[in-house]
Amino acid sequence: QDNITNEEYPSIAQKLNIVQKKSDKLNIYLNTHTTFDLADNGSNNWSAKFRMKDIRFEAKGYLTDKLFYRLRHKLNQRNEKGSLDGLSKATDILKVGYHFNDKITVIGGKLIQYWGGWEYDLNPIYIYEFSDYGENMDCFQLGAAVIYTPNKDHEFVFQITDNHNDKFEDFYSNYYLPEGIEESKMPLTYIFNWNGNLFSDVIKTRWAVALQTDAKDKHTYSITLGTMLNLPNFQLAFDYMRDDSDLDRLLVASNDAKDYFMSTNTPVNIFEDVTYNSFIAKAEYQPSSSWNLFVKGIYETANVAELEYIDDNFRKSYGYYAGIEYMPFEDQEMRLFLTYLGKKVKFEGNTNLFSNYDKNRISLGVIYRIKAF
Amino acid sequence: QDNITNEEYPSIAQKLNIVQKKSDKLNIYLNTHTTFDLADNGSNNWSAKFRMKDIRFEAKGYLTDKLFYRLRHKLNQRNEKGSLDGLSKATDILKVGYHFNDKITVIGGKLIQYWGGWEYDLNPIYIYEFSDYGENMDCFQLGAAVIYTPNKDHEFVFQITDNHNDKFEDFYSNYYLPEGIEESKMPLTYIFNWNGNLFSDVIKTRWAVALQTDAKDKHTYSITLGTMLNLPNFQLAFDYMRDDSDLDRLLVASNDAKDYFMSTNTPVNIFEDVTYNSFIAKAEYQPSSSWNLFVKGIYETANVAELEYIDDNFRKSYGYYAGIEYMPFEDQEMRLFLTYLGKKVKFEGNTNLFSNYDKNRISLGVIYRIKAF
Amino acid sequence: QDNITNEEYPSIAQKLNIVQKKSDKLNIYLNTHTTFDLADNGSNNWSAKFRMKDIRFEAKGYLTDKLFYRLRHKLNQRNEKGSLDGLSKATDILKVGYHFNDKITVIGGKLIQYWGGWEYDLNPIYIYEFSDYGENMDCFQLGAAVIYTPNKDHEFVFQITDNHNDKFEDFYSNYYLPEGIEESKMPLTYIFNWNGNLFSDVIKTRWAVALQTDAKDKHTYSITLGTMLNLPNFQLAFDYMRDDSDLDRLLVASNDAKDYFMSTNTPVNIFEDVTYNSFIAKAEYQPSSSWNLFVKGIYETANVAELEYIDDNFRKSYGYYAGIEYMPFEDQEMRLFLTYLGKKVKFEGNTNLFSNYDKNRISLGVIYRIKAF
Repeated sequence: QDNITNEEYPSIAQKLNIVQKKSDKLNIYLNTHTTFDLADNGSNNWSAKFRMKDIRFEAKGYLTDKLFYRLRHKLNQRNEKGSLDGLSKATDILKVGYHFNDKITVIGGKLIQYWGGWEYDLNPIYIYEFSDYGENMDCFQLGAAVIYTPNKDHEFVFQITDNHNDKFEDFYSNYYLPEGIEESKMPLTYIFNWNGNLFSDVIKTRWAVALQTDAKDKHTYSITLGTMLNLPNFQLAFDYMRDDSDLDRLLVASNDAKDYFMSTNTPVNIFEDVTYNSFIAKAEYQPSSSWNLFVKGIYETANVAELEYIDDNFRKSYGYYAGIEYMPFEDQEMRLFLTYLGKKVKFEGNTNLFSNYDKNRISLGVIYRIKAF
Repeated sequence: QDNITNEEYPSIAQKLNIVQKKSDKLNIYLNTHTTFDLADNGSNNWSAKFRMKDIRFEAKGYLTDKLFYRLRHKLNQRNEKGSLDGLSKATDILKVGYHFNDKITVIGGKLIQYWGGWEYDLNPIYIYEFSDYGENMDCFQLGAAVIYTPNKDHEFVFQITDNHNDKFEDFYSNYYLPEGIEESKMPLTYIFNWNGNLFSDVIKTRWAVALQTDAKDKHTYSITLGTMLNLPNFQLAFDYMRDDSDLDRLLVASNDAKDYFMSTNTPVNIFEDVTYNSFIAKAEYQPSSSWNLFVKGIYETANVAELEYIDDNFRKSYGYYAGIEYMPFEDQEMRLFLTYLGKKVKFEGNTNLFSNYDKNRISLGVIYRIKAF
Repeated sequence: QDNITNEEYPSIAQKLNIVQKKSDKLNIYLNTHTTFDLADNGSNNWSAKFRMKDIRFEAKGYLTDKLFYRLRHKLNQRNEKGSLDGLSKATDILKVGYHFNDKITVIGGKLIQYWGGWEYDLNPIYIYEFSDYGENMDCFQLGAAVIYTPNKDHEFVFQITDNHNDKFEDFYSNYYLPEGIEESKMPLTYIFNWNGNLFSDVIKTRWAVALQTDAKDKHTYSITLGTMLNLPNFQLAFDYMRDDSDLDRLLVASNDAKDYFMSTNTPVNIFEDVTYNSFIAKAEYQPSSSWNLFVKGIYETANVAELEYIDDNFRKSYGYYAGIEYMPFEDQEMRLFLTYLGKKVKFEGNTNLFSNYDKNRISLGVIYRIKAF
């Protein structure tokens, strides 16, 4: 039955095999996250609206036993070439992979970078609001990776990618650069990652260390450690992320300072010697197979060494989320949800330079990963 | 035959069922409208060109017996987030629906708003040129609707959506707003619609009333009534649409006044207290099943109450179209067409303030809704 | 078996036929070209990066025995309406065709123009770097063509399309136009093409002549002749392209002069009476079925008759490429490659007006036309 021939009168089984093989290569998803939001910006000035947080088209499949591909592309972002990688920021993923054997797989193309952390690990449609660290990662990059899987419980990945989608001068185009900073000749990011399952899957890891070249002789050293306690109806995930940047890579600190500098007619500089620390804890409980309750807390600091009038960890950010999710269909990746999301950003030291801010949101909505084929 | 199992050796019927179920979920259309145009702008200054009026990708299908989806996305418009709804204007539709039972269906996502009118009811590839009212409706909005179908001849819909894709300040960003106008906290549109078949389908209705919040305490009340006499080879459709806007919602009057105000260095204001009335009549005759002849007439007025130097119904618009359509294939949604389209816009009162204009077009082309899967 | 009926209990063969017919209509490809580049701009200032040169989605198939369609759309270019043709430059192809009989086929929609030349004939993912002529052709245009195939060895095409995607004033919007130049009323391109196989396919042709209307009474006459010696393991392709433009159509000469004019605060004019000549030779050798070696040389000149201080053929461009391609899978359109690409542009005459430039690139990468369905 399996030898598909080009005979003039193929059997029904042969015909079916051809159709099935073609069909198996393609799987289509529409990743959606839609909400009705009640939101304020800290002034108790609430307003309401419908909003689509995410719409990402996805196609993936196996082309042969060993060769596979995946494309994920946002439908609500401009399709414009990145000046470095030639791809649109709308394209999250465009990868091809090959299994050399059970243990070695190579992938190339536009990849999700292999950072650690459990917040980072999820499909973004399941994230109601990222931490500052996750929000500013710029994590879809062109490159290649080798994946080594010694056994089913451990995966080690070494990945090299471009550092950004745009060239140095475009990435930092809204800022003045400190004097003497020049473009790197090898603007790449190197990541080493370990995904592990320990004690019969009770402890799971998403750990990674990374080195990124942001400019000539300017690097960022990153460590991202996601660790999960995984029990049948309860999970506790804890993420710790740290960046030591010679030149502000995440731009969280530089961005918040931008408004201040602009208001004082001071040149808007990229900060040097910036340290970010992020802590995320998320607890989830499933009272039954179709319900999930969660709480999540985030604490993040930014420290800029170079500036005297700015205190250590001058920027502190707090996030506190809680929510209920209901999965109405067993065979559909759909979640109805009601969530509360709060966030506060506080500046220490000469606080009159920067304005604290906070925001609150109550969202009622639907996450649906439609499997359309 | 129906119980699809994961047995190691599925029967041909089981294999076929899996492939068929997957295939049934996806239907793909390319909605196209292509013409060779001879056009002038009223000065008998004719020019020729090929033009693609429409290219909209569409995918839809049933995911389960009760759950369905539909996506329609233009390929010739920027994919950029609307500042209110987060979606691109290129996305016409991105909806998911669920039939609770024979009578109650709920849909959510980016929806075609349920306005009335037969011009509005058609797939836009079949429209050679919209009325001013239809052209300026901004009718693809994020929200939800309940559809009640008491029997096969009547459908009632209640729908709530965002009022626009962009935030208040972005939607009106090209204009000065009259003093005291503020953003609404609930910028939503409420529509109630009746789609009816009467007297064995001889009379068919697409009627709707709507309330839209355009700004704080500024509303638009709309009534859109489409009624059709539907005989075997002859149809006569009549649409009446009326808008009473506290703040110009369609922007037709404000747009035509814009050039004038800009030329006089007067601030370009959004008009308040604007009334639009539109009348559309279309007669169609099928001498045989593959031919259709039509004539269509449009008369539209705009009245701005607030301004003294502008007369009642200061803007009058006339449209007069005629065409022949030929459907060469029974099993393909393809129409070859030859049409004439004329339009005149006249300003009453102090007519030296505004310039009348008119345009003519002869189009030879193809409308084709390609069913690609 | 073939009569698909709507009976309540279709046979397995009937069911399979329905699924197969639907499946046969759609074929999906992802055309990709990904590289790791070492590049310099002539100053021996090398830098490295990953880059995606091409990502084009493609769908095509037969809708009936005689009716076919094809869509090809770039995922890394803006989706914005061309001001003339209404389509995005991201859309390469959106065509529908019909075989009237074995000899006559008509196609319409956005088409690849039927220029001659073997460089031009290839899917762009297989081109590492186009000649200046090929790079600046603007060759995806809306229109229609009649294809006459008297026998399997010869194909003659007559095609009419728009001349550009954008209107005259938009296409030349970055330049001053010479005095007296006006928009054409029929901005069209007419192409006549011959694709031939001679002496049992040993000689193959892609020849075309064309007339393009660029402005009122301003035309470009083009001749593009691609001829190939086609032996079992060795091919030698030679392309000759010539443009005689009343008004610079390719804009290569005008573009290179632009910087100079801008630096001298002289108005940047479009050149009149421009002649382009391009010569391309490519030799390919296959030592085995999975390896291909090639060398390619390009010599191009641009002559501007009108300007005294500019010599005949004032701009000369040289390209010299070599590469190795390896096809690892028999049943996949994948090529791994290592190439060297060099280019030099020299200006003759008053050479202090313009600056010569050159660039070099070594690329290691993958070309993959993924057949995803």
